Amino acid sequence: MNIKINRNCEMPYYMQIVGAIKSMIGRQELIHGYKMPSERRLAKELDVHRNTVIKAYSVLVSEGFMTVSRSAPKGYFIDIPAEDDNFTNRFFPLEKMILYDYDRHTKKFMDIFADTFSDKYISFAGINMSKECLPVNGMEDIIKKLLEKASDGNILLAKLNETERTKQNICNMLVDENVYVKPQNIQLISETTKAFNLITTLYMREGDCIIVEEPVMPDAVSIVRNKGIEVITVPMDNDGMDMDLLENRIVRHKPKFIYTMPTFHNPSGIVMSLEKRIKLLELTHKYGVPIIEEDSQRDFRYTEERIPSLYSLDRYKSVVYIDSFTMLFPYGIKTGYVIGPTDLVKMLGVLVSLDEIFIDNIGDFLLNEYIERGLMKEHAIELATHYKRKRDLMCCCLDAISDKGITYDKPRGGVLLWCSLSNDISEKRVYEEAEKRGVLVMPGFVFYLDKYKGKGHLRLCFSNVSDDEIKRGIALLGEAIDASKRKV
Amino acid sequence: MNIKINRNCEMPYYMQIVGAIKSMIGRQELIHGYKMPSERRLAKELDVHRNTVIKAYSVLVSEGFMTVSRSAPKGYFIDIPAEDDNFTNRFFPLEKMILYDYDRHTKKFMDIFADTFSDKYISFAGINMSKECLPVNGMEDIIKKLLEKASDGNILLAKLNETERTKQNICNMLVDENVYVKPQNIQLISETTKAFNLITTLYMREGDCIIVEEPVMPDAVSIVRNKGIEVITVPMDNDGMDMDLLENRIVRHKPKFIYTMPTFHNPSGIVMSLEKRIKLLELTHKYGVPIIEEDSQRDFRYTEERIPSLYSLDRYKSVVYIDSFTMLFPYGIKTGYVIGPTDLVKMLGVLVSLDEIFIDNIGDFLLNEYIERGLMKEHAIELATHYKRKRDLMCCCLDAISDKGITYDKPRGGVLLWCSLSNDISEKRVYEEAEKRGVLVMPGFVFYLDKYKGKGHLRLCFSNVSDDEIKRGIALLGEAIDASKRKV
Repeated sequence: MNIKINRNCEMPYYMQIVGAIKSMIGRQELIHGYKMPSERRLAKELDVHRNTVIKAYSVLVSEGFMTVSRSAPKGYFIDIPAEDDNFTNRFFPLEKMILYDYDRHTKKFMDIFADTFSDKYISFAGINMSKECLPVNGMEDIIKKLLEKASDGNILLAKLNETERTKQNICNMLVDENVYVKPQNIQLISETTKAFNLITTLYMREGDCIIVEEPVMPDAVSIVRNKGIEVITVPMDNDGMDMDLLENRIVRHKPKFIYTMPTFHNPSGIVMSLEKRIKLLELTHKYGVPIIEEDSQRDFRYTEERIPSLYSLDRYKSVVYIDSFTMLFPYGIKTGYVIGPTDLVKMLGVLVSLDEIFIDNIGDFLLNEYIERGLMKEHAIELATHYKRKRDLMCCCLDAISDKGITYDKPRGGVLLWCSLSNDISEKRVYEEAEKRGVLVMPGFVFYLDKYKGKGHLRLCFSNVSDDEIKRGIALLGEAIDASKRKV
Repeated sequence: MNIKINRNCEMPYYMQIVGAIKSMIGRQELIHGYKMPSERRLAKELDVHRNTVIKAYSVLVSEGFMTVSRSAPKGYFIDIPAEDDNFTNRFFPLEKMILYDYDRHTKKFMDIFADTFSDKYISFAGINMSKECLPVNGMEDIIKKLLEKASDGNILLAKLNETERTKQNICNMLVDENVYVKPQNIQLISETTKAFNLITTLYMREGDCIIVEEPVMPDAVSIVRNKGIEVITVPMDNDGMDMDLLENRIVRHKPKFIYTMPTFHNPSGIVMSLEKRIKLLELTHKYGVPIIEEDSQRDFRYTEERIPSLYSLDRYKSVVYIDSFTMLFPYGIKTGYVIGPTDLVKMLGVLVSLDEIFIDNIGDFLLNEYIERGLMKEHAIELATHYKRKRDLMCCCLDAISDKGITYDKPRGGVLLWCSLSNDISEKRVYEEAEKRGVLVMPGFVFYLDKYKGKGHLRLCFSNVSDDEIKRGIALLGEAIDASKRKV
């Protein structure tokens, strides 16, 4: 409130408050129906005793400037009787008018994900960067350089340069992946989910359909389903999508896009074989259905195997490649990028600029310096080594409880273990029993669209847990499995 | 490319390249159809003479491992004849499949806006923060504190704390606006356009309609039109929307929302009178049509007048309030916020987290420190004084060319002058003639949906031009008006 208490003035504080409020009413800064702050709140704001405010308010109420309401909406309200009050007083809270919806799988997924930040849990549920392996080496020097630029405001003015510099750095990094692109093929974007969202906005309309691998990330499904786009799934073998079923579904559903994560698929960890990648591109070309390829786990390889990305194999401009630095470099938000044909990138640029104005010079500056000093490459290798060790420890701990009916295929990369449960185990009960014991796991059903038959699954992420947490957490998971089998 | 040249090895460089490529083919890292980097590019990458690469490539071509294509797609390609090559080779560039579209007004607006960053122009066209008045005071100390936190990675782990801290700081700032909210009523978001986008996603479906003031920002129109939402306009008087027409259109079109910028409206600079604000809320309650209120210019007031925001006047949860720090504090991207009922904010949070993962700890940290040290308040006052002076200078310069047929209403706040041109002047020709002279102005037609009758307009922004640029720019604009009147 625009009230100043003059502590040297002889007028009592409560009278000063009364005067100030009346004066605001006079200037029409406060008008009929305005809800006043609570007594406690105004007292705190003005640094006076609560009784002072109570006294001021009661004067204003008795003089007819305010009313008190004890039922909802509760509180003190400015009261200036209108000459002609024909208000309908219709109450329609915005909260009840929301049309947007997301299904219970997405909801469950989001709820569990939200809990992963809580200290209460050992969390294998969310994919977060490791606390033990942060990109801090060299950051001190980089921030010192930032300091020099900030002291005269220079960093604020470098907008366009930082953006171009980031794109050039991405081009240079991708050379290691046998991907040769130019800055005009790159659009920076906040995240891969956002990229997926905007690409489907560019190309798809209500009633269109898209093919995805199953299991699938529920957030991606939610994004397109809420646009009225139908989601068709294709099951996976341990070398990627079933290609016969894929062709079958392409013919039957005429999808607008195929969305795939061929390398270290989330949640299954599966790597699509080279043969299937070639077959997929063949189907793409045969039926004219382009591909969105997500490749955000590629740096975490634990073998020498390097299967080329679909983007690098494609000769016909039929693949859009999306990736992000989220797992490598969490210093800024604008860490995702999209690679595609020039016109696509241009239109995406328009959408991005309509949707959010990027001015994250600081994040970009840090990212660029980090890459150009060769630190990113080092950090990626360090992280891969770190995660490989975590994977091995997790596998080792899981082996020790395998007799309880939990198995997995050892992943060749990524930060996930996709576990199968034997038929006598209910994954939901395991999830609940584990949660009771302070261990968060992601139950498999959230990654399946509608029906979910066959074995149960758990997705366990090892990216942000200490060795000790892995040991204790998996032991507790074993107990949870036992408990889940008991008759209820 | 995964090629290492050993400079101590006796094998000639070109043979080393041949060997490395063959080995990649053997490991299936390079497969049939893979496009090799150009000679020049690979030479640069490996730091060898271009002739070395040419020699290596020609060996590979002659040995049948590669082909050269002189027609599109041009370049060198890995060639491993398949046993059964039934590729259809259908060419369907992604670039030609885009469905999304934006109208010519938005396109023109975006094109001109993009040019505002160019050094070639004195730009009155885009709204950017002043180069002369950057928030650098005190930043050195803040970044020093950041440096301490960064050296051990602490800043990366503070995610949730920074978010809550930001919300609390926004609550505290809004007290000056007589708005009392709690952190659970706030969702942080990248920008106000993004907020508008997501709110309409939550509440509206294809075929719904929304009411906006005309003139209107074309980017907002583009966002909803591309969702199949109809946009209905209501013209403005100099104290805000025509309320009779508004009621008429509410009854006729049954809109889902009314979008308004009641304080220093963009582009017109108009302030909605208190009477009209009350009337608008009355209509809102009578017909059950909620309001999205954008209030991002409120800090730039040049008079003592403080008309309460619709949000602060509303008692029935019928207003969503959106604002951003973009014009005050361009250090981070996540500078916007939405205020509304708890459930709305919760659902928005879900959408934001599906769409983009916020991890901008640094931006948040800087923002919070800046606010908590009292610097933001100082800076806002300083900026308002700075812009007021710019406004007066711009008005003074415009008065000097008023005889040419350009007039304006002196705005009481904001960073825009909304000019009217006399009937004999074509705004498009003025825009073109000014552009030829190195001055960018925003022609009025981009702010009108379809038909555009009556006088021409120009939107002139004075937020990011020096005094000298204002003087020279307006003089050149005068010349442009003269030139536009000449017979073509």
